[in-house]
Amino acid sequence: MVINAAQLCELLQGELIGDGEEKIYGPSQIDAGLPGTVTFLAHPKYEDFAYTTEASVLIVSRDFQPKTAIKPSLIRVDNVYGAMMTLLETFGKNGVPPPGISELAVIGEQVRHGENIAIGAYTVIEKEVSIGEGSVLFPQVYIGHGCQIGKDVRIYPGVKIYPNTVIGDRCIIHSNAVIGCDGFGYKPDENGHYAKISHVGFVMLEEDVEIGANTVIDRGTISMTRIRKGTKIDNLVQIAHNVTIGEHTVIAAQAGIAGSSSVGSFARIGGQVGIAGHLKIADRVEIQAQSGVHTGKFGEGAKLFGYPAIPYGDYLKSYIIFKQLPEMAHRLRALERELEEIKKKGT
Amino acid sequence: MVINAAQLCELLQGELIGDGEEKIYGPSQIDAGLPGTVTFLAHPKYEDFAYTTEASVLIVSRDFQPKTAIKPSLIRVDNVYGAMMTLLETFGKNGVPPPGISELAVIGEQVRHGENIAIGAYTVIEKEVSIGEGSVLFPQVYIGHGCQIGKDVRIYPGVKIYPNTVIGDRCIIHSNAVIGCDGFGYKPDENGHYAKISHVGFVMLEEDVEIGANTVIDRGTISMTRIRKGTKIDNLVQIAHNVTIGEHTVIAAQAGIAGSSSVGSFARIGGQVGIAGHLKIADRVEIQAQSGVHTGKFGEGAKLFGYPAIPYGDYLKSYIIFKQLPEMAHRLRALERELEEIKKKGT
Amino acid sequence: MVINAAQLCELLQGELIGDGEEKIYGPSQIDAGLPGTVTFLAHPKYEDFAYTTEASVLIVSRDFQPKTAIKPSLIRVDNVYGAMMTLLETFGKNGVPPPGISELAVIGEQVRHGENIAIGAYTVIEKEVSIGEGSVLFPQVYIGHGCQIGKDVRIYPGVKIYPNTVIGDRCIIHSNAVIGCDGFGYKPDENGHYAKISHVGFVMLEEDVEIGANTVIDRGTISMTRIRKGTKIDNLVQIAHNVTIGEHTVIAAQAGIAGSSSVGSFARIGGQVGIAGHLKIADRVEIQAQSGVHTGKFGEGAKLFGYPAIPYGDYLKSYIIFKQLPEMAHRLRALERELEEIKKKGT
Repeated sequence: MVINAAQLCELLQGELIGDGEEKIYGPSQIDAGLPGTVTFLAHPKYEDFAYTTEASVLIVSRDFQPKTAIKPSLIRVDNVYGAMMTLLETFGKNGVPPPGISELAVIGEQVRHGENIAIGAYTVIEKEVSIGEGSVLFPQVYIGHGCQIGKDVRIYPGVKIYPNTVIGDRCIIHSNAVIGCDGFGYKPDENGHYAKISHVGFVMLEEDVEIGANTVIDRGTISMTRIRKGTKIDNLVQIAHNVTIGEHTVIAAQAGIAGSSSVGSFARIGGQVGIAGHLKIADRVEIQAQSGVHTGKFGEGAKLFGYPAIPYGDYLKSYIIFKQLPEMAHRLRALERELEEIKKKGT
Repeated sequence: MVINAAQLCELLQGELIGDGEEKIYGPSQIDAGLPGTVTFLAHPKYEDFAYTTEASVLIVSRDFQPKTAIKPSLIRVDNVYGAMMTLLETFGKNGVPPPGISELAVIGEQVRHGENIAIGAYTVIEKEVSIGEGSVLFPQVYIGHGCQIGKDVRIYPGVKIYPNTVIGDRCIIHSNAVIGCDGFGYKPDENGHYAKISHVGFVMLEEDVEIGANTVIDRGTISMTRIRKGTKIDNLVQIAHNVTIGEHTVIAAQAGIAGSSSVGSFARIGGQVGIAGHLKIADRVEIQAQSGVHTGKFGEGAKLFGYPAIPYGDYLKSYIIFKQLPEMAHRLRALERELEEIKKKGT
Repeated sequence: MVINAAQLCELLQGELIGDGEEKIYGPSQIDAGLPGTVTFLAHPKYEDFAYTTEASVLIVSRDFQPKTAIKPSLIRVDNVYGAMMTLLETFGKNGVPPPGISELAVIGEQVRHGENIAIGAYTVIEKEVSIGEGSVLFPQVYIGHGCQIGKDVRIYPGVKIYPNTVIGDRCIIHSNAVIGCDGFGYKPDENGHYAKISHVGFVMLEEDVEIGANTVIDRGTISMTRIRKGTKIDNLVQIAHNVTIGEHTVIAAQAGIAGSSSVGSFARIGGQVGIAGHLKIADRVEIQAQSGVHTGKFGEGAKLFGYPAIPYGDYLKSYIIFKQLPEMAHRLRALERELEEIKKKGT
């Protein structure tokens, strides 16, 4: 949204010192304020930033006396904390649609739902779906045949959910994520041509799971792909067929878990990590970004790094020497020459 | 979907022993059965799993006599295989829309199509598109101007296809994949500012190609980006402009092929692999997950691994030593000291 | 699109020698012509390709005299360059919708817009959005509450933009990209359960930014995530919360920038690169594909490679020795044995 300094001042019932026409696009922190933002001096210990911030507007208390010139326009208010809250609320509106089912949504036969749900325009709900009370489906969502959606779930625009997916209470699924598509399973014939293996399983997200934008979770081949409660998955992550992710695990962006592997609970998987198929990764494992995990032999709480991944400290120690390899090669060659000479002398 | 044990029993015309209210969300395999699923004991050799499975319902033959206590409810049936098939069919319904064009789809001028096609709600077909008989376009699909779509093609919800794309018979494209967008081509001017190179080429998918969810295939700059027949591409893969992928090749999730490279036929590309631009990768090459391929010099059938990728066995052998590098560095230093001493003595 | 050789010939007002029924799907370059395409011999220096190209149709000047048999059908024209331009224009039509707001779009309250905008079917614009003149929103786009969209912006089908995003003039956003979703920020409680940190910041794309298909840009936590002017981002890229990317930088496909990092101006980030969080990457840095950057210590113009990334040349030199490690290990062992023997003799 855009608001000018004068409007902002009115909203906060403050006193403006500066240009009322200045355009504000959102809030910022005082130590990182950028042009087009409004920031706030909420505590005297940050006062130095007030003289250097590039924010266009600075909110200060009525009794603030600048020691030197200040670049941003000022809005003086009675209560900086209160103004800050008003401000974050104003800019942070997430546009959640009010309860109600859009007349522009398609709702299939035998769809059951609880109270206070919202379904946006151009969303398609296929038949025999159930949706728990308080759940919000934004516009342009697709929910396949027979899906079960819990209470207070939030599904952002463009999410596509294949048939028979089960989604627990309070899950959040961000835009354009895809849940429940076929796994990547084929059977080569004698000519090396691939025949598709049909995928009749499903995906289960337990309660309080969050799925990032453009993430993909494949359905199980026969059984389920399962994301256990409290687990948070970032954007652009790939979860293949038959995978289980434990409880309260976090998986950062662009990581990929190959088919039939399981990850334990309370694990932390870094961005762009790859985990090979058919592995069992223990609880509380921490995997450094971009690592490639090829074995499940590391125990609970292991910290891993590298490609293939080994214990974190071991990888770092080896990598330090890796950087010295050209020099080591010279030293080895020098030793060989010297020994050659010693042997010559010896004879 | 959800069904309770009593309903399931009725569907299978069996005899229920246990709680009829138990909720079932889908099937599972007996060795990996989870609560909320139904599994089956189809062969005596799996009997041990019957006593340990966590599945909620177990389907057994009428003459099955458990040796000890069994946790799941039982459904006894005449024919376990038959019941299993009924079950997989029931849960595996993929909700393919019946033939017909939704009144809520937008169909442009001069769109031609064969018989028995299905077009879902909120799908947009721009003008001069042709669609072969038996093809299914789910809801919320976009087909750009002048695209040619073959017979028996399946395009899942949310797929976006840019103009002039050619899609062969029996291709399957999963949700939110994007086909035919502009390649990443720019020309820097003398100030380092990038001017966009226009992309007037197109994408051709030959017959029997499958494209995963959220995968992106760029159009050619002048000519085509081409995926040859029978090739299967997983989720979240990037295929850049002017690339050719050969026949019956498989590319796992999150791999990326940079501009103007070609990959041969019957190749196997692992997950998160990167292939640099302007390379020619031979037929039947196998590339280990996460490898980075910087050269096309490896011949037909090469197995590659590493970053940059080298022959698989060579990488593994080097990596074994890599893990010992800190110890090797110590040994090298020790040798140098000893030699120093010998030389001292020598003088 | 598809056109046959006779239609193409008519379009170009040429003379056809060969099969008028031959189907043409698009153009190609003469050195890479494939069946189903039309190519052109625009300069005598490429004549050799005319005898080997697999293109179905070849456009030549009226006075061209082949030295030997030619496989493609020929279309003789007065002006090969002119015909080529007509051809690229014909196949390169990008189907941009004409100005106008579709009756099948949902436009919220207090949406303001300039002249000559186009809004496609099934697009949803939430309230208080502003759209500058000449901007084109294709079908099935979602624009959240309070977004500001500049002039001559192009937003392709399926793009989802969360509330309060600011998009500068002449930006291009490709299909199914997601801009402004919540960052991956959680606070673990004493049981290791994650509580969501609310994200009230926003995303700002300055002028002339291009965003690839299925790319995701998270909103700032309190302040903004900012992509500065002229920067080009490829497909499937992850830009986390609070990141700043400088001006005229290019980021290739599947790269990921973790939270609160900044990248300078005129930088070049390769495909699948990962940049860790809270780093400051200098201007004009070049990062080789798949590298993992763990520090911001490298200065302006540094060329980086490796995992963790180090100067490009250093990585390559070390990697050459890495490939020789098994042999080096043997040599080290041999030296140790020889020294052992010398020492024995010495005693």
